[in-house]
Amino acid sequence: MYKAPVDDIAFALKKVAGLEAAMEQGLLGELTPDLLDAVLEEAGRFAGEEIAPLADVGDREGTSVKDGVVTTPTGWKALYENWSAGGWNALTGPEEYGGQGLPTSLSAAVFEMWNSASMGFAIGPTLTVGAVEALEAHGSDELKATYLEKLVTGAWMGTMNLTEPQAGSDLSALKTKAERADDGSYRIFGQKIYITYGEHDFTDNIVHLVLARLPDAPAGVKGISLFLVPKFLVNQDGSLGRRNDAFCHSVEHKLGIHGSPTCTMIYGDGSVDGEEAGAVGYLIGEENRGLACMFTMMNNARLLVGVQGIGVAEAAFQKALDYARERRQGRATRLAKNPEAGGQMSPILDHPDVARMLLTMKSLTGAVRAITYACGHATDMAKAHRGDAEASAAWKERANLLTPIAKAFSTDVGVEVASLGIQVHGGMGFVEETGAARLLRDARIAPIYEGTNGIQAIDLVARKIGQSGGEAVRRYFAELDETIEAVRGQNEAAFGATGDALAAAMADLRETTEFLSNATAAKDMDTALAGATPYLRLFGLTAGAVYLAKAALADTTRTERAHLARFMAENLLSETGALKRQVVGGAASLAAAHSILQ
Amino acid sequence: MYKAPVDDIAFALKKVAGLEAAMEQGLLGELTPDLLDAVLEEAGRFAGEEIAPLADVGDREGTSVKDGVVTTPTGWKALYENWSAGGWNALTGPEEYGGQGLPTSLSAAVFEMWNSASMGFAIGPTLTVGAVEALEAHGSDELKATYLEKLVTGAWMGTMNLTEPQAGSDLSALKTKAERADDGSYRIFGQKIYITYGEHDFTDNIVHLVLARLPDAPAGVKGISLFLVPKFLVNQDGSLGRRNDAFCHSVEHKLGIHGSPTCTMIYGDGSVDGEEAGAVGYLIGEENRGLACMFTMMNNARLLVGVQGIGVAEAAFQKALDYARERRQGRATRLAKNPEAGGQMSPILDHPDVARMLLTMKSLTGAVRAITYACGHATDMAKAHRGDAEASAAWKERANLLTPIAKAFSTDVGVEVASLGIQVHGGMGFVEETGAARLLRDARIAPIYEGTNGIQAIDLVARKIGQSGGEAVRRYFAELDETIEAVRGQNEAAFGATGDALAAAMADLRETTEFLSNATAAKDMDTALAGATPYLRLFGLTAGAVYLAKAALADTTRTERAHLARFMAENLLSETGALKRQVVGGAASLAAAHSILQ
Repeated sequence: MYKAPVDDIAFALKKVAGLEAAMEQGLLGELTPDLLDAVLEEAGRFAGEEIAPLADVGDREGTSVKDGVVTTPTGWKALYENWSAGGWNALTGPEEYGGQGLPTSLSAAVFEMWNSASMGFAIGPTLTVGAVEALEAHGSDELKATYLEKLVTGAWMGTMNLTEPQAGSDLSALKTKAERADDGSYRIFGQKIYITYGEHDFTDNIVHLVLARLPDAPAGVKGISLFLVPKFLVNQDGSLGRRNDAFCHSVEHKLGIHGSPTCTMIYGDGSVDGEEAGAVGYLIGEENRGLACMFTMMNNARLLVGVQGIGVAEAAFQKALDYARERRQGRATRLAKNPEAGGQMSPILDHPDVARMLLTMKSLTGAVRAITYACGHATDMAKAHRGDAEASAAWKERANLLTPIAKAFSTDVGVEVASLGIQVHGGMGFVEETGAARLLRDARIAPIYEGTNGIQAIDLVARKIGQSGGEAVRRYFAELDETIEAVRGQNEAAFGATGDALAAAMADLRETTEFLSNATAAKDMDTALAGATPYLRLFGLTAGAVYLAKAALADTTRTERAHLARFMAENLLSETGALKRQVVGGAASLAAAHSILQ
Repeated sequence: MYKAPVDDIAFALKKVAGLEAAMEQGLLGELTPDLLDAVLEEAGRFAGEEIAPLADVGDREGTSVKDGVVTTPTGWKALYENWSAGGWNALTGPEEYGGQGLPTSLSAAVFEMWNSASMGFAIGPTLTVGAVEALEAHGSDELKATYLEKLVTGAWMGTMNLTEPQAGSDLSALKTKAERADDGSYRIFGQKIYITYGEHDFTDNIVHLVLARLPDAPAGVKGISLFLVPKFLVNQDGSLGRRNDAFCHSVEHKLGIHGSPTCTMIYGDGSVDGEEAGAVGYLIGEENRGLACMFTMMNNARLLVGVQGIGVAEAAFQKALDYARERRQGRATRLAKNPEAGGQMSPILDHPDVARMLLTMKSLTGAVRAITYACGHATDMAKAHRGDAEASAAWKERANLLTPIAKAFSTDVGVEVASLGIQVHGGMGFVEETGAARLLRDARIAPIYEGTNGIQAIDLVARKIGQSGGEAVRRYFAELDETIEAVRGQNEAAFGATGDALAAAMADLRETTEFLSNATAAKDMDTALAGATPYLRLFGLTAGAVYLAKAALADTTRTERAHLARFMAENLLSETGALKRQVVGGAASLAAAHSILQ
């Protein structure tokens, strides 16, 4: 069973992402190291003791819908109620609406735990976070007064309604219609698909944020508006009014996250007796500026999907390690140097090949954790430096830069680590009762939703590395260099050739960055985009390995961190040369071979 | 829906694996190019029209057991009966027992199709092939007379019973007991797990091959014997006698291949009324030599598991390509050079990132197909050269060398390609109705069973590259060199830098082979085994890319093959340098980091 790695997470936040220094400088409000530890400790307890035991039932039972009513897994409603009663939903929300105003980085750490325990459960509150952000940034005072506290405390949950059958990655094709009503509200008509927690019984109201198009809107993405559409209308006194014309039509039968109802939502087909057709909606922000509202919360939403990758990877590693310690097969050679192994079978982790899998899992998990927390911290620092435009902008660019990597690399790692976890288990891994297989099934969605990982890579190449004329990425690389130089400057044997390996990877990262920047500048987008996915992985591997080394430098009491950083540097980082060649030399053959596919 | 790539498969057999030359030299008996084409054509039709439409029902319904009776998916019994009535089970069996005596390579090709259509269905007959081989090579005349024709024609199916809860990869821990009976037969007592098609209603008898230990057997693997244990005893006249004490206790709830019943079998617990406890078994081969009997068929069994990887990869590629041609999102840049793409959304395959995924899928699928067919062909050539001990031994060594690669690399590719297939589909890929998710679920077992891929890699490093003092691997590399030189010797622009890329990969392969040979010779097994998995992948990528180039050289009428070979060489082969560094420089950091896991 999952046990939250509270110490590792606290260390990654304080020493690697930079929270310790920020707390010392008073940049994180009332957050102290003690409070941070206490939050993590209690979240870890809740995740391990309350959520994790209900993960399997959620997977087995899944969800179903009948007459618009969705049945959720046994015990999940009570779990959600306990969870929100514990204040967990309110962790980052604005204090004036009942939130605790704690930093994004801490929220990422805590969401990692929820996801390790059950990704199908954690994805629900993830969506509420997005709704809170959009409403806080762009909602009218009236909308905020009516809905924000309910969403912040978790009394109601939120959903995001973007996708339609013909409009997935490309939102310009949206067809859902919004019509202006006489009272200043709107009526929404259309179908939305893949709506996570679009309908359920956890809360007595659900707040849908829906992208739709006004009759006179310009074509394309500049004609999309954002609306708040409650499941039940809310009376002046805050009590619930009539049912709105917003219904779940069906739930998907999915590969994973079975406990999470993924709904097809129908807005405005006249399902409410005695009312004219049309779901009552309220504009958020300005007409035709809906996409800008979505962008506000996109970084954080993507960050929290990256967190799903970490969460699943950590859970998969723990499960595989437990198994590899217990399971005995064959006789290992000398790796274990375990005197008691003489006559009997060895624990399988003593076989080098199994050790390779486990160390790959552990180092990749640590790497994506560090990147993602650093990304969250950058968001917090942009906020903390509100008064200093330049500093704030620099931090904002840092968050922008790291977001696609935190999202895509972490979720790719989630799939990779979960698959290795199955392999470590052998035949037991393929049997569902073990739970290793569920982790792969759950993990597999994260590279797809909230912008596919291909789109993240395009975002990184086409937009993020060009921020401020390349200055944002240069500043970041300079910081990575500092760690690399520090590794090279010490003589600890445990680091092995880590410094040189990091420096070689860094050189690959710089060369590819320059290559892609030039291609983009020359408007040779086919070349730039052909290299986007290998480039993102190169970036993630390098940054992640540097963070593992940074952690090792910060913790001189234990050589384990140095050993892990060294394993990653001397084994996994060898891939950066290969990725570089794909970026720099792979586009022509890709273009030439494209005709095969037509 | 799956459509067998009959032309591609025929080409790979004839021109790449070498069947054309072998047929010309009369080495493949009565097989002619026309017969080969006809077999593939008809198998392709059966796979696409008869099996594929029943894949989903098998996945949805799965199997269940009640009172020892297993329920198989709707329509599958009739499917099996049609399939074996069509002579497909008898394809490679000995002619004197009703088989058609066709080559292993052709069998691999046909099994690829069955697996593309439904891996859960195809795995059943795969096990029967193993039973036929063991019985043919080691069974007494009486056993052959009673059982072999039934197994060859498919009237009865076979199973392999190796694994026990405490004995998976390490068979030395087997506990199932065999006791000698007065009549020369044996009584078997014990539990076996993960028995594929251990019980079902496809055939009226089932022939279990069971590893067990005699009371006076030596400890370890030298005390294991192989027994034939029929579900129903067989009377002298060939009619079925009483039920044997061999029952299915439960079926596993698995990640994939749901249509295939994976059984826990209980032998000899006295479940047959009026009979003494003990399953009646008949010795195959000699007492305590059971493992040698298993080894006879191990190459072919591993080959056919490799074929599962190809089959799933091909199916995943086809499905993803179909989707990527139809689905339109966004506007591609110039890759497609498609004039009609002006105002409307582009098919997603015109986006470089999607094209990269699809070309990766196609090239890897072609690569593992070529390796696996070449491996099967080597087995056939060893048989065809029976009269020439040296030639036969050389071919046998070739088959031995390629078997772990065919098994492990193909099945890793199966998982990788199936996962990419989901990604190409976006959200649709995560919805089970699309079928892309099932392919990943099915594929995930193949790297585990029939010797985990880690064990394949150990086999390659510890045993196979040392065959004949390294001569077997040197001969193979010399053949790869010939193709590489031929690529470098021509001036076709479509090949781009393929020749140089292949040569660089080949140098990496030679260097790592030498490094691992030296480590093995020095008995530094920790170093050798730490590099085993990356080495196997390096070997597979290089050999596969050379085969794609060989195919391109053999087909000068179409540049598509050259484009594909080039894509693989210039993109995917860049990984060999990384893998080399892991082999040559990765072991020390792995050993140092091992303490983290303890």
